Amino acid sequence: MVRSVEAFVFDVYGTLFDVYSVQKACEECFPGKGEELCKIWRQKQLEYSFLRQLMGRYRTFLEVTKDALRYTCKKLRVSLDNKKEEKLINAYLQLTPYKEVQQVLKELDNKTLAIFSNGSRDMLEPLVNHYEFGQWFHHVISVDDMKQFKPTPASYMLVLDRLKVNREDVLFISSNTWDIAGAKSFGFYTAWINRTGEIMDELGIWPDCIYSDLTEILEWK
Amino acid sequence: MVRSVEAFVFDVYGTLFDVYSVQKACEECFPGKGEELCKIWRQKQLEYSFLRQLMGRYRTFLEVTKDALRYTCKKLRVSLDNKKEEKLINAYLQLTPYKEVQQVLKELDNKTLAIFSNGSRDMLEPLVNHYEFGQWFHHVISVDDMKQFKPTPASYMLVLDRLKVNREDVLFISSNTWDIAGAKSFGFYTAWINRTGEIMDELGIWPDCIYSDLTEILEWK
Repeated sequence: MVRSVEAFVFDVYGTLFDVYSVQKACEECFPGKGEELCKIWRQKQLEYSFLRQLMGRYRTFLEVTKDALRYTCKKLRVSLDNKKEEKLINAYLQLTPYKEVQQVLKELDNKTLAIFSNGSRDMLEPLVNHYEFGQWFHHVISVDDMKQFKPTPASYMLVLDRLKVNREDVLFISSNTWDIAGAKSFGFYTAWINRTGEIMDELGIWPDCIYSDLTEILEWK
Repeated sequence: MVRSVEAFVFDVYGTLFDVYSVQKACEECFPGKGEELCKIWRQKQLEYSFLRQLMGRYRTFLEVTKDALRYTCKKLRVSLDNKKEEKLINAYLQLTPYKEVQQVLKELDNKTLAIFSNGSRDMLEPLVNHYEFGQWFHHVISVDDMKQFKPTPASYMLVLDRLKVNREDVLFISSNTWDIAGAKSFGFYTAWINRTGEIMDELGIWPDCIYSDLTEILEWK
């Protein structure tokens, strides 16, 4: 099943960067609530991107992320002032990359490497620049360029348009089960990075490979 | 804000019927896990309907409900044999209606009353027939007739096509925040039935009214 592909396309949130690395900032703002806040925040961020896509009411992922944070604070009955909001949103622009990322990218330096994210550029650029990841990625593709969130088929089409490759030339890598389902349904090869022993969603679509971290994708070189 | 409307259009799951009434059957099948199973099952059922709509991979809500049940049992590491699956799915076809439903419908008998649900007819008909609700509803509208799940704008359009009314003649009633957002975004008047003191989602869209049960919708008569 494993073969050599031309392009390695990476999801960002949860895949290259740990979204739960904002937990420290959450805990500093709201002692005792950091873990729960962080979890609901992520869940609502995803849900709002799906719902806005379904309703035809696109807003950028940064705005969606802020909306999700506001909901979460109301839900947990904690008061989010401007200063705390700024601190938490800034934490989202400086997420921690997973430890193996840099080495994996280095070993793929003869391949086409791209980021493909629901994140808008105002979220992706600080993140990529902060860790100097720009040197590895030839393309930073945001759905904001066409204003359709993953996992619509049209969103994945953007990758082909930008990279000028065919579907079967792409290995798409994500930790998110819904993203893997969308990408596989569209026709990419897919590697699901399952760091925490989750189970795959029952959507009738299965990844080509399941790995416990990114190093294993090197077998597609 | 409140006015008289011609048509009262009801969501089904969580609005007329208590989806958590399957908890008893869940607990009988999997002692000690009923509550958790029931909660994850509902959450995944909704998520899968959204994701299938986004990916363009529609299946009926009955199939989605079965998929969500299978996921949930895997997640909770319990074994779902055919007999248990049949028992639990049957429980979903005999949910308990909220106690005020019958009386409210009776008081609206000079209005156009409709059900509008993501449920397919193989789910809705057993439910409606079991409680003889057919006598109250002039229309049982399933998104399965057009194969698009709520909350897409096109799904709500089906209501207008069937009832031959204008948007502003409709009060749409739901307990589900995402359904209220979709219906309001489409242009219906909306009453959010908030039985458990939840907070509204931050989608930039707000219901016309928030009630703690269905009896209060009578002010739109």
